[in-house]
Amino acid sequence: MNNYMKESRLLHGGDYNPDQWLDYPEILAKDLEMMGQAHVNTVSVGIFAWSALEPREGEFHFEWLDKIMDDVHRMGGNVILATPSGARPAWLSQKYPEVLRTNAKREKMLHGGRHNHCFSSPVYREKVAIINRKLAERYGQHPALLMWHISNEYGGDCHCEYCQENFRTWLKAKYGSLEALNKAWWGPFWSHSFSDWSQVASPSPLGESAVHGLNLDWKRFVTDQTIDFYRHEIKDIRRLTPDVPVTTNFMADTMDLVPFYSLDYEKFAKEVDVVSWDCYPAWHNDWETTADLASKVGFIDDLYRSLKGKSFLIMESTPSGVNWHPVNKTKRPGMHLLSAMQHIAHGSDSNLYFQWRKSRGSSEKFHGAVVDHDNSTDNRVFQEVAQVGKLMEKIATVKGANKQAKVAILYDWDNNWALDDAQGFAQATKRYPQTCQAHYRYFWDRDIPVDVVTPNYDLSQYDLVVAPMLYLLTETNMQHLADFVKGGGRLVSTYLTGIVNESDLTYINGWPATLQDLFGVKVKETDVYYPRDHNQVVMADTSYSVKDYAALLEVLDAEVVARYGEDFYAGEAAVTKKTTGNGTAYFVGARTDNDFLVDFYQEVTAGLNLMPPLVVAGDPEVSVQMRTGSKGDFTFVMNFSEMTKTITLAREQVDLLTGKTVPTQLELRPYQVCVFQRKV
Amino acid sequence: MNNYMKESRLLHGGDYNPDQWLDYPEILAKDLEMMGQAHVNTVSVGIFAWSALEPREGEFHFEWLDKIMDDVHRMGGNVILATPSGARPAWLSQKYPEVLRTNAKREKMLHGGRHNHCFSSPVYREKVAIINRKLAERYGQHPALLMWHISNEYGGDCHCEYCQENFRTWLKAKYGSLEALNKAWWGPFWSHSFSDWSQVASPSPLGESAVHGLNLDWKRFVTDQTIDFYRHEIKDIRRLTPDVPVTTNFMADTMDLVPFYSLDYEKFAKEVDVVSWDCYPAWHNDWETTADLASKVGFIDDLYRSLKGKSFLIMESTPSGVNWHPVNKTKRPGMHLLSAMQHIAHGSDSNLYFQWRKSRGSSEKFHGAVVDHDNSTDNRVFQEVAQVGKLMEKIATVKGANKQAKVAILYDWDNNWALDDAQGFAQATKRYPQTCQAHYRYFWDRDIPVDVVTPNYDLSQYDLVVAPMLYLLTETNMQHLADFVKGGGRLVSTYLTGIVNESDLTYINGWPATLQDLFGVKVKETDVYYPRDHNQVVMADTSYSVKDYAALLEVLDAEVVARYGEDFYAGEAAVTKKTTGNGTAYFVGARTDNDFLVDFYQEVTAGLNLMPPLVVAGDPEVSVQMRTGSKGDFTFVMNFSEMTKTITLAREQVDLLTGKTVPTQLELRPYQVCVFQRKV
Amino acid sequence: MNNYMKESRLLHGGDYNPDQWLDYPEILAKDLEMMGQAHVNTVSVGIFAWSALEPREGEFHFEWLDKIMDDVHRMGGNVILATPSGARPAWLSQKYPEVLRTNAKREKMLHGGRHNHCFSSPVYREKVAIINRKLAERYGQHPALLMWHISNEYGGDCHCEYCQENFRTWLKAKYGSLEALNKAWWGPFWSHSFSDWSQVASPSPLGESAVHGLNLDWKRFVTDQTIDFYRHEIKDIRRLTPDVPVTTNFMADTMDLVPFYSLDYEKFAKEVDVVSWDCYPAWHNDWETTADLASKVGFIDDLYRSLKGKSFLIMESTPSGVNWHPVNKTKRPGMHLLSAMQHIAHGSDSNLYFQWRKSRGSSEKFHGAVVDHDNSTDNRVFQEVAQVGKLMEKIATVKGANKQAKVAILYDWDNNWALDDAQGFAQATKRYPQTCQAHYRYFWDRDIPVDVVTPNYDLSQYDLVVAPMLYLLTETNMQHLADFVKGGGRLVSTYLTGIVNESDLTYINGWPATLQDLFGVKVKETDVYYPRDHNQVVMADTSYSVKDYAALLEVLDAEVVARYGEDFYAGEAAVTKKTTGNGTAYFVGARTDNDFLVDFYQEVTAGLNLMPPLVVAGDPEVSVQMRTGSKGDFTFVMNFSEMTKTITLAREQVDLLTGKTVPTQLELRPYQVCVFQRKV
Repeated sequence: MNNYMKESRLLHGGDYNPDQWLDYPEILAKDLEMMGQAHVNTVSVGIFAWSALEPREGEFHFEWLDKIMDDVHRMGGNVILATPSGARPAWLSQKYPEVLRTNAKREKMLHGGRHNHCFSSPVYREKVAIINRKLAERYGQHPALLMWHISNEYGGDCHCEYCQENFRTWLKAKYGSLEALNKAWWGPFWSHSFSDWSQVASPSPLGESAVHGLNLDWKRFVTDQTIDFYRHEIKDIRRLTPDVPVTTNFMADTMDLVPFYSLDYEKFAKEVDVVSWDCYPAWHNDWETTADLASKVGFIDDLYRSLKGKSFLIMESTPSGVNWHPVNKTKRPGMHLLSAMQHIAHGSDSNLYFQWRKSRGSSEKFHGAVVDHDNSTDNRVFQEVAQVGKLMEKIATVKGANKQAKVAILYDWDNNWALDDAQGFAQATKRYPQTCQAHYRYFWDRDIPVDVVTPNYDLSQYDLVVAPMLYLLTETNMQHLADFVKGGGRLVSTYLTGIVNESDLTYINGWPATLQDLFGVKVKETDVYYPRDHNQVVMADTSYSVKDYAALLEVLDAEVVARYGEDFYAGEAAVTKKTTGNGTAYFVGARTDNDFLVDFYQEVTAGLNLMPPLVVAGDPEVSVQMRTGSKGDFTFVMNFSEMTKTITLAREQVDLLTGKTVPTQLELRPYQVCVFQRKV
Repeated sequence: MNNYMKESRLLHGGDYNPDQWLDYPEILAKDLEMMGQAHVNTVSVGIFAWSALEPREGEFHFEWLDKIMDDVHRMGGNVILATPSGARPAWLSQKYPEVLRTNAKREKMLHGGRHNHCFSSPVYREKVAIINRKLAERYGQHPALLMWHISNEYGGDCHCEYCQENFRTWLKAKYGSLEALNKAWWGPFWSHSFSDWSQVASPSPLGESAVHGLNLDWKRFVTDQTIDFYRHEIKDIRRLTPDVPVTTNFMADTMDLVPFYSLDYEKFAKEVDVVSWDCYPAWHNDWETTADLASKVGFIDDLYRSLKGKSFLIMESTPSGVNWHPVNKTKRPGMHLLSAMQHIAHGSDSNLYFQWRKSRGSSEKFHGAVVDHDNSTDNRVFQEVAQVGKLMEKIATVKGANKQAKVAILYDWDNNWALDDAQGFAQATKRYPQTCQAHYRYFWDRDIPVDVVTPNYDLSQYDLVVAPMLYLLTETNMQHLADFVKGGGRLVSTYLTGIVNESDLTYINGWPATLQDLFGVKVKETDVYYPRDHNQVVMADTSYSVKDYAALLEVLDAEVVARYGEDFYAGEAAVTKKTTGNGTAYFVGARTDNDFLVDFYQEVTAGLNLMPPLVVAGDPEVSVQMRTGSKGDFTFVMNFSEMTKTITLAREQVDLLTGKTVPTQLELRPYQVCVFQRKV
Repeated sequence: MNNYMKESRLLHGGDYNPDQWLDYPEILAKDLEMMGQAHVNTVSVGIFAWSALEPREGEFHFEWLDKIMDDVHRMGGNVILATPSGARPAWLSQKYPEVLRTNAKREKMLHGGRHNHCFSSPVYREKVAIINRKLAERYGQHPALLMWHISNEYGGDCHCEYCQENFRTWLKAKYGSLEALNKAWWGPFWSHSFSDWSQVASPSPLGESAVHGLNLDWKRFVTDQTIDFYRHEIKDIRRLTPDVPVTTNFMADTMDLVPFYSLDYEKFAKEVDVVSWDCYPAWHNDWETTADLASKVGFIDDLYRSLKGKSFLIMESTPSGVNWHPVNKTKRPGMHLLSAMQHIAHGSDSNLYFQWRKSRGSSEKFHGAVVDHDNSTDNRVFQEVAQVGKLMEKIATVKGANKQAKVAILYDWDNNWALDDAQGFAQATKRYPQTCQAHYRYFWDRDIPVDVVTPNYDLSQYDLVVAPMLYLLTETNMQHLADFVKGGGRLVSTYLTGIVNESDLTYINGWPATLQDLFGVKVKETDVYYPRDHNQVVMADTSYSVKDYAALLEVLDAEVVARYGEDFYAGEAAVTKKTTGNGTAYFVGARTDNDFLVDFYQEVTAGLNLMPPLVVAGDPEVSVQMRTGSKGDFTFVMNFSEMTKTITLAREQVDLLTGKTVPTQLELRPYQVCVFQRKV
């Protein structure tokens, strides 16, 4: 059993960069002591430490890291040890320029920044292999070593000749022949057929940007190439430390908080032992409510948890604010605890921060940290962090517990890429991830647990599958959905579904027969709205406004649930339902606001038992999430509002955080969270 | 007599790309049959087909095209055959990089996209000559061949060394000596005099962008160089098929629909046998009324018709929506017929589409087409196209008929370039084309026929000439305008007129004497308004608001028509009128809204007989346009609104579209169009 | 005594470019005559004349300049003679490409534009030395020569290899060792430590942009390198004409009129004999009042005057409008006089224009000038210029008089650069220069004279020092401020003060002790507001709204002046005051609107005698400024509004401009200015 499995505590701590403070021994000395006060048990070390570990080619300095490993172990803590490939020392760029990326305009980048190495460069791979092997050899058996943190926030792409060659190799393996590639990419359009493999190149603003098949394959290649680099990074690590789990930190796209765009984490999740991610919501912003944003956080937590179907880690978060939002507001009192507990409620076994200590210089010196420049334990942030650490100790038994859901929402990276690149519809209103989140909101508001999975997952365990806007939908996955309904499931689909196949080629001869049969409708055309256009769908005498998209449907053998209120298709079907045995397939032709979704899902979920067993808050701004594990059920009740909320419990409960019994009429202060346990 | 002259039908059809479907014989087989159902009689073939025609250098494949030519002929149709230079095969870019453009930053472009070859490259010219000659040899005598479609939507520029050398040659021919060039470009300013021809280079954001004379000459050179390339393309074609007419498709600039900016179509029109253009208005948008947009379409139709003073072709349009507007809304029912008829009403002998069939892949797969991905004749678009085809057959006798106008509005590419580039006034409010369209609107609203010509045209045939904002006005054209007034004409000119000569050098020693004499005023200064500034012109006790520009006038011997209401020049002349014999010259010093133009033109046109003889709708949103030809007068009455409109006819008429007699109180449904014929 | 000291007139005239008109002898002939009519006594000649002086390498043409020098002298005028380095002849770029700049993306620029030479290029330095020496030799003793005008509006940077090498040399001199540089730049962050000097390079969007220490040092280097080039330019000039004063024209950043960002004029001012600057406010714009803008002009005048603590020159301004604002509105009648007098009131000894005569061609042909294209003396602009010239003659005795102030506002280039680059807070609301101007506004509104100096100046002469947002504050300058208070001064400081040292490294272990001791508070954290966030400070029962920033303070031994009204820190200290002996230190924790500053400064200034002795307008829109010299006090009373204003004078005065005695109840027309003299 490895240290990670042996560790019974929830992880509390974060990125720790002693290499920045080697000239400040008094600081380093104080760190360990302060970690104790902050109830920190885990630090991530070595991210960006390459120039401290190998300041000149082949000259290695591990003494400082030895000491940190030992010190952390001595205080009873864990180290998540990073490979340093996220940023290079200057000597490496200078001596081997091939390690620098070439951008899409084919400009060779200069040294600087971070996260910008070529994933193909043989030299970079060699140098990374050396340092990684040395780390594994030296620390692989160290008792403080909890887990490997491979590189940092992988992302971006490179267009150098190595990468072009790898891309062509990847294409050859995929297509077999140039003829097949020309067919898949619709080559004859604009005379874009290739007559030799050497003509194929990555997309570029100076060259090709309009071949959608190429664009889509490039994005897939970038994921595969990134994973290939990751596999290279862990080769010796796996060999030398087969028992130590490996992760790399995933991301989300802020400001409109949605899943990370550029890498297909469905593929990447298969390669890591534990999914971990970095979460930076702009709490207290001025364009959405706290509950609006919390629901988006929940969506991504549920997606990343569902990738492996088990508990995950928050690898980075801020205890206060960040430094890279347009407005860097700090968390109000209480928000840090609430936000930490939300991740745990959705399946996180950690609350780790970027960063333990604010740096003194350079661009991240104002990024929030547990220890501020004042080096003090008195300030609000340190105090709140210490409190979070203390309370996490009280709910440690939740570690490893999973979530159970009867509802799945589908999210698909391939589909997002293809739809985003599609020239057509209206660029500003595609909003595929946001639409998934809008549907998710119904369930979040009602404390109904949800998995967010891709269309390739096994859906048979669910009662309800919500699959908005699957513009790119393979025939296999269509059948997958049809089988789900045939098996008695309820399915909700929408406008902009089933338009292209995996090559981004449109289905021809009409909307796919599988879908026509499944939904009992045909999509005749899709109306696209200007911002000031208006229409309604009318369901049971209530009107709901329509925006952005409206599919015009020919009803084959479906029941009409709602009809359009205006325009030349007034009175025609807008939302339909087809029942097949116990299963039902809904098709929502129009994009609406939340008011329609509320009433619609009321009907869709009628008769299903989707509720969490213990507590239902009955207030959209109070979120209830439950994890179930070997130690029982853990129910988190969280007030994502600036108001006191009263909710009714079925019976009195003990709040694990306070140790006190709370009444059935529970008053929750703004941002308050309670945790109840039902033992098995 | 060539096929085009022999063809008695209006052309209906469009771009057809069988080369994209060679792997889909069942699709190709169905195309011809569906064309019949759609009343299609003409297809444009071969645009972008180079890689299908010559997949490897020197390896030609004409079999597929042979079959298409024969098939189309067999169904009684015409082929407009394109030269394929609009996009290159990859082997051509790969083997001969010189064919790729160099952009203004002197970056060599990569292969990809379209419309991006160097117009100077000897290799590109050689390769184009070969393929064009082969097409002319093989199909020049084919009975289906109607016309040559040279390349596609010429545009853009190249800054490679070949082009630089050609530019210098062009300048030497124009200026004779470097001294003359230095004088014309005001060389000493910022030490920009050249001491050797080799120092002269095209404008660049990395180098020279502020020498207006250079910028203007570069734009002129680009037009001339594009025409030179076009002449090269047609050399063998003219030799081998002297009787087959030649065209190339012109464009407009969307979204604010104005004439194409980058090429001087006055020059280009002289080189083609028939003017054709591609029109993509954003019907049903949310920032203007249908009539607002229809009027802009009418302006460009009238401009492009007037270029050669005869009927023209719509070479591309969409039967539904496009894929490249920010919001790609489809035409509402009825709009397709209305919009097709509007072009015919303004002088088009065709309604051709981009495109016959939607492609399956790549960036234009969602561009509207007659045949959608469903491959069906049942959908709304196909049905409406078929109806348009059928109705065009009913008015075929209009073919070749021209328009007659007593009003000319002047539009000048040189002036637009010079004014647009001028540093001064206010960049956001120059809006020269839009101002021409604003004046045009008066006449369109009142069904008064208008020609839109350049200042170089013979104006003697007109009663009224409207010449807004001729910032660049040569002495020759000043005299031209003066002669027009001397000959009894009425002339309207505005602020920002007569400021620079053909070298973009300001006139010195005061506003040109010819203009002072013509208008009886001197422009003292031009006030430029911020958006929130306000003023009025007062005419006959009515106030009209002023925006953007206000010329301060010294009245010499003109009559004051309106005066300013505010600011330090309150009470001074804003609009003047000088009568010389039968002629009158109006000077409108301020930019106003439409309300002033309505009252002003009421006075300007008083006593003139500018009206169409048959019908006057009396409603701005109902447009009436008449064409007169050997078969009589054809009057098109078109309701550009979403309301039913009632108009009064002098007598009952037969609507050619329905074959029915309509009453004198004619009710027009939204978007309805009627066509009346008065036989000769 | 040099000509400049001998000259008893205020300078009136401006940039004169006869080299553009050498082909127009009739124009040149008229210029001198018209200068007389315009009361012009000084022209700046030779800016951008290099291609006229040396049209081919080594071929010099001074005849035309000889004539201008003689002619101007003959009319009794002065010449400010420019070195022509601001723009190159084409032959120089062509033969020696190294003179062209390399931009931050390492792209070599092409020939063109202006102000774009490499400051390091040995060739450029050599060619500049030759032409400068020849000018000094030929005209150094010419009786018309008043002053040297070195180059023109120095600015920009170059990233070529010469500049990189100079930058590394500069860094070596500054840091001594690479280790010291790594420490100062916080090298280990993101592995950015250097192991060899050759790895260091200037910031680039293609490489390093996030190392704040590097960014800051690069900006400092650019200033030093520009000055180094300037020193090179004047080397022979100083040797040959030791008595002729030297200047170079400084700038401001328009549109939000603030001091020039890119060069540290504190350093540059030490190198020039007379500070001169180019001022282009957008008078009559539609987003601020005339007084708003006038106050900003006053701020920059007071800053540039304070740089050397003596009278300065307006080297460029426009008599009407410019050509490069988004909207180029001309000055309303009276504004030209008012704006000319404002500069003189703040310490200018000149009113010089860009430009004497509008050019005929190229990009500045619509920039305002004394002589317009009409070549006439009749138009409004010429008339107003002539009037200004005439009136300047009436107040010539003000020449050389200085201003006396008991209030200093601190402005610091280093701080602006560091804060602007800081990732943190909120990028859109940093607004350091605008905040200094907001505090300045209190004094301007009340006619209290103010010096604007940097924190390095001697503050002991002041009663009150206002030091907003000194984010970068050295320990030396902290002590400087503390000493000022210890000496009995009153000091006002704000949020975002004392955060980093001169290396942009944060102070650690809490807010600097010197500041804690000085203000009697500790800054605990700084809240950053979204635009729609709200809060208040409450002072003496009045509430004032807070925006953008709010520092949370721990009060040590200060008195609380105002408290926060909302949020989790409601009731906590927002503004504090600590008295030490006679001195007082105020700390303003929150950014407020002007209403708070008015009431706050009322208290701060209580008991101080800061008022000008003669006149207090009592109306914020009427500005009173006084200069004191050997000829007495000169009081300028200026109505910066569009309304008639009545102010009360202590006694009757003679207005120097009209020669008339004005009553004690003085009515000022819109834009009117009066000048009163109290003789010594």
